[in-house]
Parts: sequence; C-alpha cells; structure tokens
Amino acid sequence: MKWGIIATWRMAYEGIMGAAEDLSQGLSAKDALENTIKAVEDYPFYKSVGYGGLPNEQGIVELDAAYMDGDNFNIGAVAGIQDVKNPISVARKLSNNRFNSFLVGSGATAYAQKNNFERINMLTERAKKIWENRLEEMKNSNLSPYDGHDTVGAVCLDKNKSMVAGTSSSGLFMKKQGRVGDSPLSGSGFYVDSEIGGATATGLGEDLMKGCLSYEIVRLMGEGLSPQAAADKAVYEFHDKLAKRKGKAGAFSLVCMNNKGEWGVATNVEFSFVVATDKESPKIYLANKGEGHTTIIEEASQEWLDAYEERIKRPIQ
Amino acid sequence: MKWGIIATWRMAYEGIMGAAEDLSQGLSAKDALENTIKAVEDYPFYKSVGYGGLPNEQGIVELDAAYMDGDNFNIGAVAGIQDVKNPISVARKLSNNRFNSFLVGSGATAYAQKNNFERINMLTERAKKIWENRLEEMKNSNLSPYDGHDTVGAVCLDKNKSMVAGTSSSGLFMKKQGRVGDSPLSGSGFYVDSEIGGATATGLGEDLMKGCLSYEIVRLMGEGLSPQAAADKAVYEFHDKLAKRKGKAGAFSLVCMNNKGEWGVATNVEFSFVVATDKESPKIYLANKGEGHTTIIEEASQEWLDAYEERIKRPIQ
Repeated sequence: MKWGIIATWRMAYEGIMGAAEDLSQGLSAKDALENTIKAVEDYPFYKSVGYGGLPNEQGIVELDAAYMDGDNFNIGAVAGIQDVKNPISVARKLSNNRFNSFLVGSGATAYAQKNNFERINMLTERAKKIWENRLEEMKNSNLSPYDGHDTVGAVCLDKNKSMVAGTSSSGLFMKKQGRVGDSPLSGSGFYVDSEIGGATATGLGEDLMKGCLSYEIVRLMGEGLSPQAAADKAVYEFHDKLAKRKGKAGAFSLVCMNNKGEWGVATNVEFSFVVATDKESPKIYLANKGEGHTTIIEEASQEWLDAYEERIKRPIQ
Repeated sequence: MKWGIIATWRMAYEGIMGAAEDLSQGLSAKDALENTIKAVEDYPFYKSVGYGGLPNEQGIVELDAAYMDGDNFNIGAVAGIQDVKNPISVARKLSNNRFNSFLVGSGATAYAQKNNFERINMLTERAKKIWENRLEEMKNSNLSPYDGHDTVGAVCLDKNKSMVAGTSSSGLFMKKQGRVGDSPLSGSGFYVDSEIGGATATGLGEDLMKGCLSYEIVRLMGEGLSPQAAADKAVYEFHDKLAKRKGKAGAFSLVCMNNKGEWGVATNVEFSFVVATDKESPKIYLANKGEGHTTIIEEASQEWLDAYEERIKRPIQ
C-alpha cells in the first residue's frame, strides 16, 4: 500500500525520517504530519519555525501554523500566537471545530492556554542575538530588514489513502507586530483533497497570497496533470504574471504530492525539500528553476549538506 | 465606457447609490469601492459590519477587512482589529506595502493608531443589548450561539478598466476571541484580476475557506465562462462536494463581476445583493438556489424591503 510525505526545506529531514518509518508501519497521515512539523518546531537551530524562530521587530516571536484534513476539508489555523511550543498541534486541534477554527493574536494564545498546550518562551538566546545584530545593522544601512521566510510545509499520504497538509512558521524576520503571511491561509499556504492530492508553499507570503498557488496546484492535479506538471504550470505562470503586472515577484517555492504518492516541486529560487515514499527512502533534494517552465531537481550533495550544517550552527557574535 | 459595482446584501445599497453616481463621472474603482464599504461600516443598524457590528463572546467588537487591487494583485488585510472606524481604509493603505500587508490582532490596531486612522468605540448600545440578550438565551438553551456572518463584499470596475475587490465584517456573532473567517483571506473572501474580473463571498467563513471559491470563480471567468455560469459552477459543485465529504455545508453566497461589467451570483441560502452598472441603475436583488446548479434571481419587492427595514431597526428589549 502506498504512502508518502513531502516537505519544504532541508529542516524537515529529521522529522521525515521518523514519519517514513511510522507511515510504513501504518501510522495515520494526521499523526505523521503533526510529528514531522513538531520535530522542526522543536529544533532550536531552525530559525524560521517554532522554538528558535526569529522574532518580529519588537523582539517577540509570533508564530503561524495551519493543518488541513483532505478527507473532509477541515482546517485549523493560528496566526500571531505567542510562546506556544507547538503551534501545529494547536492548529490540528482547532481543525475539529465547526466554528472558530482560525484564531489570531491574543485569542489564539488564550485558546492554547485554556487547552493546556505547552507554553515556553520561544525566543532563544541565539535568536535574540541575531535580532539585536540586525537592529544594529539597520541603523547603519538602508537595506530592507526582511529576510528568512522559510516555512515548513508538508503534505502526507497514508496507507488508508487519507491525506493531510500542514504548515508552521515564525514568519518574516523583523516583521511588524501582527504580520501574517501565507502559511495559515488556505489555498495560499496549503491545500489538500484526499481524492486528488495536496500542496504547500514557502516564500514571501505577501506575494504567495496573490496567487492561491496551493489550491491551483491541487486543482491542476485534479484535472489529471502529474504533480510535477501541475507545480511547473501553476508556479511559473504565476511568477510571469506577477512579474508583468506588479513589476516583480518575491521568492516562492511549492511542493506537492498526489494520492498515488507521486510528487512535484517548482520554485523561483534555489530551494531544498525532503521526500519519502513507500518506494523511496528519505532524501534531501535541491530544486532550481530551469529553462522555460521547468524545474531542475538534484539530490543534495554531501558538500551542500555540510555547508548547511555549518551555517545554521555558526556561532553568533 | 463601461463601469460597474456589485456587493453582498441589501446593506450595500446606499453605498452603491453613491458609487454609481461617482463611477459614471469617472471616479476610480479604488475610491468607489472604499466609499461603498465605508458607508456600510458607518451605518449603525448593520449589525455584522463596522460600527454597530456584534461583538465576540467577551463583548468586544473584532473586525476583519481586506482590499485587493486587480491591476497588480496588491492585497491589504486586517483581522481582529479593534475600535477602528473604517477597517476597509486600513486594509487599503496596507495594500501598498510590499511586506507586512496583512496584520492581525493588537498589531493591526497599533498600525491603525500609528497611522492616524479614526478610533471610536465600535460597540453600540444596541449591539451590546443584543449580546447581553444572547448570553441570557445561551444560559437557557443548547442552541449554537453562532449567527450573523453577513460580510459586506464588493467588486468594482471603473472606466479605466481597473478592478478592485474588498470586504469588511465583524465576523461571527459570539465568536471566540481572535476568530477569523474568510473575509480577509485572499481566494476565499475575495479575489480580483483586472484582466478577468473579481468575486467576493459571505457566509460561514470556516466553510468558505475550505473551497477558495472567490479564486475559483475568477479562474472560471478567465476560462471564458460568463460570471453567472462561473458562480453556479464553483458554488454548487463545492456545496455538493462539502455535503458529501463533510456531511454538511454551511451557508455561503458569492457575487462576481467580469471586466465587461457583466455579473453573476450563486448561493445556498436566500441572499440579497446590490448591483449598478453603466447599463443598470442601482438595484436590490434576491437570489435563491434553483433546480440543478442554477440560481433564481429576482428584484427585491417593496414588501421585502419594508420588512427588512422594520427588522433591522426593531427595538431591542
């Protein structure tokens, strides 16, 4: 029986290692996806998701997450939640609500409190130092302060043919208080239909929500396109449209999987992602935009992986 | 030269009267749409939008709004903003930002403060009484407390062929603190592309965001469907899908207009809406789901209008 999971960025690898083992033994997509994203949220060296995530301009870590069940389209989401260890778990719980399933700001935090979700101060010493350094740099330059919008997004298929999608992000580094990107927004940050497949996004949320690309990729897969063809068509056509109409397009990268465990990816920047299926052990890939509307995909080299490891753990002065 | 505006619910009528006059004289869609929605926000007897809007379960009015420019896809949005007279104007201003264009909770309110948007206590005496009465009723019944999710959403075309879309809502009456519906979510609450057309939604936000129906209607118009055919196809197919997969579908109603000023509507409940174009003076219509995937549209009778007027102004004990 088929199963599979695909997720954005190298950072999902450890979580997917566990999920692959669990899915092969029959764990539900619901649990496997939540576990995968929790592993990313919990790892302190991933600075754009969960614990260790970079703060907003005031030094406060505000987190966004969403969870969607492809069987019944139930969605749970939070935005601007503070000091909650696992936003993805809050989003999953909210997805069971018929009403009040998307909560923001202090309302989201209060919900997590009342429902006994673990609270911790999500601002690590390392993230605080990076924030302080950036404040210092900004005094001395006119550079845009915004950087680091690497959401973890995942799509998962289990042996019972159920599919789920989820996202988690600390959002744009140095964002304004209360800023929300695409991650908790259905159709933009994620979308999944167990009878077709799912997709999820990472990149500049303000531009991603202009295109509803996760919805569009799922729709195209529903019309019979392969995941790779669907991703290429949706992502590059929208990139061109935005470049023409707005003058420029921010970075965005999408991954998708259909209900047969086949997958695809498209991106307008260099982008790493992780896949595991019943046919393929967990692997880290790099994707780049190719000629025309195509994507070049290669396995990440040991050299790339070593450089990544060194970069995320580099001491902060 | 063509122009047009369509908006959800009877409550948009006065605003559209003004907008029709202004659009015929060449006012931009940007201004006409903002003025239309401001008129609804400012009118104290509309209890689901702006001033006079019903509060959350704690008695606090939390407002959502969005604005989208169909020329360049710029989007601005707020969710859970408090005590700001015109959320639509805040959303419009945010749409000019490349970053931080969607703000929620206290961050949204702080932005409005810093940018000198007018503050007023948005909880009217009338809304407070309705809230108190509902709290009392809830003590004595097991009825769902949720009601009144009548968002104003509008799509506007001007003589320069620019199109914009916008929404404003106080959300679900008795919602949990921080609850957000579809209104500020691109693709679900609204979507517009000046080269095609726009659409906007009202209804149960938790279900609307499962379908990305505003995006889907615009996409179908882009494939050449008339606005009415696009609305019928998107809305009723998704209604059936949700009923099958989830067991039930909440109320939802969508209106749309293409870049020729032609319009359409589809709904799974009785639903009023307002249209004006260069060919048609402002009119209030009622829509109902017909046989198969069709919509029955008729002009609102004087009797219906009188009953509406009496209902919204009925004294609250």
